[in-house]
Amino acid sequence: MREDQRQANQLRPITITTNFVKHPEGSVLIEVGETKVICNASIEDRVPPFMRGQGKGWITAEYAMLPRATQDRNIRESSKGKVSGRTMEIQRLIGRALRSVVDLNKIGERTVWVDCDVIQADGGTRTASITGAFVAVVLAFGKLLEQKKISKMPVTHYLAATSVGMLAEGTEILDLNYGEDSKAAVDMNVVMTGAGEFVEIQGTGEEATFTFNQLQTMLELANEGMKQIFTIQKEALAELTERIGETIDAGEQS
Amino acid sequence: MREDQRQANQLRPITITTNFVKHPEGSVLIEVGETKVICNASIEDRVPPFMRGQGKGWITAEYAMLPRATQDRNIRESSKGKVSGRTMEIQRLIGRALRSVVDLNKIGERTVWVDCDVIQADGGTRTASITGAFVAVVLAFGKLLEQKKISKMPVTHYLAATSVGMLAEGTEILDLNYGEDSKAAVDMNVVMTGAGEFVEIQGTGEEATFTFNQLQTMLELANEGMKQIFTIQKEALAELTERIGETIDAGEQS
Amino acid sequence: MREDQRQANQLRPITITTNFVKHPEGSVLIEVGETKVICNASIEDRVPPFMRGQGKGWITAEYAMLPRATQDRNIRESSKGKVSGRTMEIQRLIGRALRSVVDLNKIGERTVWVDCDVIQADGGTRTASITGAFVAVVLAFGKLLEQKKISKMPVTHYLAATSVGMLAEGTEILDLNYGEDSKAAVDMNVVMTGAGEFVEIQGTGEEATFTFNQLQTMLELANEGMKQIFTIQKEALAELTERIGETIDAGEQS
Amino acid sequence: MREDQRQANQLRPITITTNFVKHPEGSVLIEVGETKVICNASIEDRVPPFMRGQGKGWITAEYAMLPRATQDRNIRESSKGKVSGRTMEIQRLIGRALRSVVDLNKIGERTVWVDCDVIQADGGTRTASITGAFVAVVLAFGKLLEQKKISKMPVTHYLAATSVGMLAEGTEILDLNYGEDSKAAVDMNVVMTGAGEFVEIQGTGEEATFTFNQLQTMLELANEGMKQIFTIQKEALAELTERIGETIDAGEQS
Amino acid sequence: MREDQRQANQLRPITITTNFVKHPEGSVLIEVGETKVICNASIEDRVPPFMRGQGKGWITAEYAMLPRATQDRNIRESSKGKVSGRTMEIQRLIGRALRSVVDLNKIGERTVWVDCDVIQADGGTRTASITGAFVAVVLAFGKLLEQKKISKMPVTHYLAATSVGMLAEGTEILDLNYGEDSKAAVDMNVVMTGAGEFVEIQGTGEEATFTFNQLQTMLELANEGMKQIFTIQKEALAELTERIGETIDAGEQS
Amino acid sequence: MREDQRQANQLRPITITTNFVKHPEGSVLIEVGETKVICNASIEDRVPPFMRGQGKGWITAEYAMLPRATQDRNIRESSKGKVSGRTMEIQRLIGRALRSVVDLNKIGERTVWVDCDVIQADGGTRTASITGAFVAVVLAFGKLLEQKKISKMPVTHYLAATSVGMLAEGTEILDLNYGEDSKAAVDMNVVMTGAGEFVEIQGTGEEATFTFNQLQTMLELANEGMKQIFTIQKEALAELTERIGETIDAGEQS
Repeated sequence: MREDQRQANQLRPITITTNFVKHPEGSVLIEVGETKVICNASIEDRVPPFMRGQGKGWITAEYAMLPRATQDRNIRESSKGKVSGRTMEIQRLIGRALRSVVDLNKIGERTVWVDCDVIQADGGTRTASITGAFVAVVLAFGKLLEQKKISKMPVTHYLAATSVGMLAEGTEILDLNYGEDSKAAVDMNVVMTGAGEFVEIQGTGEEATFTFNQLQTMLELANEGMKQIFTIQKEALAELTERIGETIDAGEQS
Repeated sequence: MREDQRQANQLRPITITTNFVKHPEGSVLIEVGETKVICNASIEDRVPPFMRGQGKGWITAEYAMLPRATQDRNIRESSKGKVSGRTMEIQRLIGRALRSVVDLNKIGERTVWVDCDVIQADGGTRTASITGAFVAVVLAFGKLLEQKKISKMPVTHYLAATSVGMLAEGTEILDLNYGEDSKAAVDMNVVMTGAGEFVEIQGTGEEATFTFNQLQTMLELANEGMKQIFTIQKEALAELTERIGETIDAGEQS
Repeated sequence: MREDQRQANQLRPITITTNFVKHPEGSVLIEVGETKVICNASIEDRVPPFMRGQGKGWITAEYAMLPRATQDRNIRESSKGKVSGRTMEIQRLIGRALRSVVDLNKIGERTVWVDCDVIQADGGTRTASITGAFVAVVLAFGKLLEQKKISKMPVTHYLAATSVGMLAEGTEILDLNYGEDSKAAVDMNVVMTGAGEFVEIQGTGEEATFTFNQLQTMLELANEGMKQIFTIQKEALAELTERIGETIDAGEQS
Repeated sequence: MREDQRQANQLRPITITTNFVKHPEGSVLIEVGETKVICNASIEDRVPPFMRGQGKGWITAEYAMLPRATQDRNIRESSKGKVSGRTMEIQRLIGRALRSVVDLNKIGERTVWVDCDVIQADGGTRTASITGAFVAVVLAFGKLLEQKKISKMPVTHYLAATSVGMLAEGTEILDLNYGEDSKAAVDMNVVMTGAGEFVEIQGTGEEATFTFNQLQTMLELANEGMKQIFTIQKEALAELTERIGETIDAGEQS
Repeated sequence: MREDQRQANQLRPITITTNFVKHPEGSVLIEVGETKVICNASIEDRVPPFMRGQGKGWITAEYAMLPRATQDRNIRESSKGKVSGRTMEIQRLIGRALRSVVDLNKIGERTVWVDCDVIQADGGTRTASITGAFVAVVLAFGKLLEQKKISKMPVTHYLAATSVGMLAEGTEILDLNYGEDSKAAVDMNVVMTGAGEFVEIQGTGEEATFTFNQLQTMLELANEGMKQIFTIQKEALAELTERIGETIDAGEQS
Repeated sequence: MREDQRQANQLRPITITTNFVKHPEGSVLIEVGETKVICNASIEDRVPPFMRGQGKGWITAEYAMLPRATQDRNIRESSKGKVSGRTMEIQRLIGRALRSVVDLNKIGERTVWVDCDVIQADGGTRTASITGAFVAVVLAFGKLLEQKKISKMPVTHYLAATSVGMLAEGTEILDLNYGEDSKAAVDMNVVMTGAGEFVEIQGTGEEATFTFNQLQTMLELANEGMKQIFTIQKEALAELTERIGETIDAGEQS
């Protein structure tokens, strides 16, 4: 039994509020337990220089925490004048994950800017960002569709992320909160598609190592959790998919 | 009659949600019409180097917008690696205003960090920040009081801010939204205490100039609006002031 | 009676030396008491990217102090690698003020760069900068006129600035020197046109607040001082206005 | 059969030259095929601020490429004034991996700085860096042992890294060179201990996804390659281990 | 005959105005022809970290140009956020030169900050800076002497600098102005002591090379010019040396 | 007799390994005693903005040290976020020197990027860089010639550099190693062409001064050393010059 009374294979409650901020093409507030992230997707009608003239689009992500999203206040990265390695790592991960389920050839020379801003942190901010950002990006594409700027939803699969880990005593658990994350022996972030395939696996033995069997157990936990997350995403997108009459492969995996 | 059907002397609806984020000592979400700002106050048990050894405290503010708080996406200041002049101007203003109603000798060698993060912008973000930050700071001092780290609420007056302006055709108006602000001939930010005195006046004829009489009319509008804002702040703080049994001069001005 | 024997409503002696540096299109050394600022106006034959193709010009200002313009040496901003909030605030103010009296449609796609470099500081450097910069800018436009690059002086009014303030004991005074500024309860910078209208008012109760009546008294002091400053500017520009045969509204206000 | 005639499960030739540069406590040139990295380990007799007073040490890594290590010249990160996200990600990975096999309590308040400088790149620079850095770090600890600054080799296991991947057509391969890496559908970096356990797994479906079975096949390839790499490391360290009479768990895994 | 009618071995007129700015311990305006540099020497009562505890002092220099000191406006280095290579080269040269004639053991743990700010440039700004800075530094030491913080003038020799060069057609000339400098085949900066010895020689064949004989001719020109400069420095310092009753080796070289 | 048993006029052993790294158009490892520098020359098919449209090329150099090239580890300049004054000075020197022997009109609108990366330092890294970079640049031009992108070797003379200096006791010596350099009273870097003319002389009396006679002695030492260096460069380039059938003025000076 975990500190917050969850089972080893139990997710924290997840809420996705769509259209949270009014200006962005797609906007979502995702809450995973006490972790809260605003995910905004903005469409820009051009691509970065290295992509120009190829007739295809690009997706890039930025991630930040409000200074007091955490127990202790962090110095603002704009004040420090540079972005930390942790931030860079996370925003590269979010962008890469989203690009894996979007057909960039179908969106024209446009950039999707995804901004994930953590307003309250309790572990799992990067995975919550990916799960929320996916919904925001679909909403933004929905807007392009309704404006007839694109002719088909360019998203090939649902996409979500969660964390799994192994406690010091050897138990594998799903969806670590901050307290668990800071004590875990192994910490693994998993990004999967609705079809049940892996997009990214990042597993780290913080002060420990792990065997293939432990890896397998953790990945099975992730897979089970992911199925529930896809259901929640599907509900958050129900109003849109009904309106535009397009569905995305929601992961009816065998 | 204004675009959004307001009278010249009418504020937009203001909502102040206290304890919005869980970690900060004081946290507020302030909504002024469509403008939404998270104001967090954090207490740090030391002062910046230039203040050390004087037995008194310090208050400093930081201000930022989420990239897509606005109609068009702004580049994140952490990515640019520097803070813009506009941001600096605003955060200096917020800090200065708050310091004018706090007795820094009464808070010990502590720094109050005030973070104002605009999640949605529709004009008046700096004045909303001041109005919300005041409440967050009082909440944070309330926590210090309850923890018996200070013995008395160190706040001498209520403090709030609003904008006034003059349209191109010469009408003075209260509380400009973004559309009005971008067309206004004169734009003025006013910070006042609950006692009806001025803390700061910043008036700019953007592409125009203004006379003393026009200034007087605008300041009267500000004064009327401010009385309503103090009432809203008082309600937001009612639960706290009841609990700690201390009141702040709420501006029963003559 | 003030420390330097001035009356409350008395300016310090002002000297404006034109053509102080040889390369700039307009160059002025302004001395206001012991405060000395070099104001150079440079004409560049293009505008910043956000202004291109509109057929109009732009004016922008930069402000700096020599490291030892002050009692204690300041670290050079180029060594720190960033410009302070105070500097940004001042240079934004100078640029905004100058743009309010120049018809940018009349100068073609040109940028006027105004550089205000304080070589000795004794209070009021930002207001001295504005007063001096106005003269430098007119000189620069005079050169464009003589080169027949523009056909008419594009300046609509004289422009100057001064400071007013309130001492702790409640006396309102004009044109604060450094000693007065550091002790003042209220500090206000006023920018006015020759027609006696306000361009910008920035008043701050440093550790105090002020009433509407005190504001009124301070603005009257500013207005009286300003009339004398316009006379000094007019003399500094006499040689030019005679040569080009154009006058600027010198503020024959009622 | 691969472009360079290797089998799917075949490593490129690996050479480790010890004592490559004379000043560092540990220095290695590692060549993995055409990839060449100088790995230097430096001992500093203090730890970073966040570690002070705990009586234990720290290991941190920096990674860089010479501008022309690659086919096209890259701009030097010192000229750009900031370190790229890719660089940060890699140096964080190297440091984390090395810390997992060193008992930081056994090295006193010392920092081991590991510098991995790629002088020629042909894919796999981060895994070559880890493999080479491990040897450099052991050499540096050997020096501390011989100087009697520590009493026992503080390294618990051998450590090495390699890459595995999946070609677009679905074949899993070991140790990708640059050409393979840029075409691979899946790219995975694996860090393992001599005991055959995982320290870190980072797998990315670049424009593809992968199943659990494909993951398993790739990890088996990595495991086979790793056994050969440990043998090469052991040879490179033979002279030292003989001299100091200490051995490290060389991975006699079952 | 040169453009400005000088002989090959003729200096431009040099004027040194002492006590130019009021705050610094030593302040000088040096004019060499149309080149004008403010040289301020500030005394700080501590040394940089790398010098602490040695009981000796340090001299460091900073150099800058006003943006419009030159024919075309230069971007301010504080705006660019970094100091150019040219600036660094010059300020390192100035500091090094001054340290060569000051006995740092005689000034206690103090730093002399030398600020050379070019307000108008017409070639030879770095050599004018050194010549002017020497006088400013002696004035600052004079102040320390009069305040009895040091007991003896710690300057061992007079110090000055000038430029020499070779025109494309092969003529060697002394003290190049900007026009000459930009056309010169060889450009050489020479720093000498009052005793006629070299402190620094920096000669560059810009798009040419030079022989030993040409070098010798240029150095002789420099030596002749230097004698006149020392006389001008001696006059500028006459009032001080008379007052403090100490002389510096003024270069009665054989 | 010197510490390393050399005569005053004796160079350290010099080795030049060509084609050291595979990607650059020209690549060299130069070893001067224990000093080792990788010099890579890269050809880019465009010039920097300030050179465009003139039909001529440009040569620019960058210089860096690996952090542990020296006895103590230096902080990486990319981590500091800025390039030191020393580095800037050196890379400006290398670029200037190389441009003096290349006819930039003969290489089209191309930039030659020269990267000098010191992997081990023992004094004389900047002069070794110039000597090695010259060979790398010639190799790169050789490649352009063979690709028929240029029609003639655009190099007018051999070019090399060495250091000379004066020990505290007054002895002049050639090619200082680190130990000598840190104790030398005078330190001079000399760049010469194969024709025996000077390209650059930079002599500094670190805590001393020097006379014309001492200068002359040092320059004679440099000249003698340079003749041997040209021979070594010629050998390193023998294979190329034979293949392309072009020779460069190898300095058969009288």
